[in-house]
Amino acid sequence: MSELRKDPVTGRWVIISTERRKRPTDFRLESVTVAHDDSCPFCEGHEHMTPSELLAHRRHGGGPNSPGWDLRVVPNQYPVLRVEGTLDRQGEGLFDKMNGIGAHEVIIETPRHEETLASMGDAAVEQVLWAFRERVQDLKQDRRFRYIIIFKNHGAAAGASLEHPHSQLIALPIVPREVRDEVDGAKLHYTAKERCVFCDIVRQESHDSRRLIAENADMIAVAPYAPRFPFETWILPKRHQALYEDAARHEYASLARLLGDVLRRMNRALRFPPYNLLIHSAPLAEPAADFYHWHVEIIPTLTKVAGFEWATGFYLNPTAPEEAAQVLRDARG
Amino acid sequence: MSELRKDPVTGRWVIISTERRKRPTDFRLESVTVAHDDSCPFCEGHEHMTPSELLAHRRHGGGPNSPGWDLRVVPNQYPVLRVEGTLDRQGEGLFDKMNGIGAHEVIIETPRHEETLASMGDAAVEQVLWAFRERVQDLKQDRRFRYIIIFKNHGAAAGASLEHPHSQLIALPIVPREVRDEVDGAKLHYTAKERCVFCDIVRQESHDSRRLIAENADMIAVAPYAPRFPFETWILPKRHQALYEDAARHEYASLARLLGDVLRRMNRALRFPPYNLLIHSAPLAEPAADFYHWHVEIIPTLTKVAGFEWATGFYLNPTAPEEAAQVLRDARG
Repeated sequence: MSELRKDPVTGRWVIISTERRKRPTDFRLESVTVAHDDSCPFCEGHEHMTPSELLAHRRHGGGPNSPGWDLRVVPNQYPVLRVEGTLDRQGEGLFDKMNGIGAHEVIIETPRHEETLASMGDAAVEQVLWAFRERVQDLKQDRRFRYIIIFKNHGAAAGASLEHPHSQLIALPIVPREVRDEVDGAKLHYTAKERCVFCDIVRQESHDSRRLIAENADMIAVAPYAPRFPFETWILPKRHQALYEDAARHEYASLARLLGDVLRRMNRALRFPPYNLLIHSAPLAEPAADFYHWHVEIIPTLTKVAGFEWATGFYLNPTAPEEAAQVLRDARG
Repeated sequence: MSELRKDPVTGRWVIISTERRKRPTDFRLESVTVAHDDSCPFCEGHEHMTPSELLAHRRHGGGPNSPGWDLRVVPNQYPVLRVEGTLDRQGEGLFDKMNGIGAHEVIIETPRHEETLASMGDAAVEQVLWAFRERVQDLKQDRRFRYIIIFKNHGAAAGASLEHPHSQLIALPIVPREVRDEVDGAKLHYTAKERCVFCDIVRQESHDSRRLIAENADMIAVAPYAPRFPFETWILPKRHQALYEDAARHEYASLARLLGDVLRRMNRALRFPPYNLLIHSAPLAEPAADFYHWHVEIIPTLTKVAGFEWATGFYLNPTAPEEAAQVLRDARG
């Protein structure tokens, strides 16, 4: 029989469907393949094709916006929000609006078009994680911003419009709804139990290894108990910490190792799937130190969201997380 | 400059992006085309290929599960939830679960494979709307169910696995999250103002015609102020009523006319787009008569949901609703 499961943080219910059970080979898998592209604005030597860089890692020197970099951060050429201007909050009869003030940046993860986070090596992934931290540290000085979301769309099916490995950062003037629900849920748990719900998850999943995928000294990768999507995977730091940017250097190194490992497992088990990677961190200007716990979520693009999900926010998942975890545990290189 | 807009019911913010502005011709449009299929289980003469019918409209007689019908309702062959059994709510350490109890039915809207809601004529669409009502009236007798969602996935890109025109109904043992947010938001508005928020929307949008698409005596079709998706369209009854199944017969007739009209406008403007159609109605066992207001939402599948939306619940919409409404107003047959 199918099971209804509740996410202990957001309270979101999902249906783990046995009638429609899908194993990795049952999905119409769409593999991400990358071909060299002479017109790619993110490739080395094409620095003039992007807005001027905000940050670059250049181990071997070289001037801004010139070749020789390992990683670059640039403003998005077509930003969804802009830094310049004022919010100018307004009513329109019944309705509320404000100007699209924020920041929208692109983290170009490598000068090499054909690399991926799964193939580029731990040190290079750590550089990317470190760049996320540097940009957040800088942007949080701007008091207009309430939340900074860092995410990656890998593959066209996951929403990527450019192939070259990159992540994005958007600084928002409001705390968005999913984050609000997650933070409020974590706070509720803390109020009731004086414990962080994510610490509880780390503890229970380490002990009950059915949903455990992999771990190292600082990090644990699990299939969440109530996943919205097949093979959804969370990576959580074992040490309690609300903000991503407050992690210790060795934690970024551990995350880089585990992230590369998990992505390579997905590549083996799901044949190079498209995916979204999301960094969940606490809102900027709210005290959440006790009850929130930053983490990473990875969602391979294997299913379509349809009417039922849009209407209800209730997700139908054809793969139990215990089965997904088993498959990913077995997909060791 | 882009605009951040807030939905007055759910409180959900969206970004109406001017930088990434898209007109109908800018979308990579995927048209829904339907070809005759001899193996379709929903076609007339194939009644043995579905589970036994729960309801049929047979103007010209004929026995159950035999040809001669105008519309059939059958249990879903691969139900996501099952009627038999008990909920058996359980904890699992930190986590909560229950059995997948519910109902999952398919409304086969016509015996003819190649028809669509846009082409089948007002009387046939009214029959479909009436069948929704009959099934809800029946299922709400079962006290285990807290919510009944009726939805339609039209076209493979919108999640339809069979081409033959059909809708689905799922009865759930919980009130799902999106519905909870919508009901709570409507209640908050009512508490503050002693008015239904949807009645306020109907009033403001009738008066300020920028987002008005079409209307008739009982119904109004609008582009909502803060749409998640380009060309998202809501059809609302002008008369306040919380539950879909409590509408009057002339209201179903008016809805059928306006729904067919709106879908034909979308077909003209967006070249036969895939879409999801959702019926929003109040939860079954909660008093919501004063503040909730049933309505229909139509979401054409034109964009991909990616990392930003998954992480934040914050939607990026490249088409302003004023522009979408203008395009659909002009797409009169």
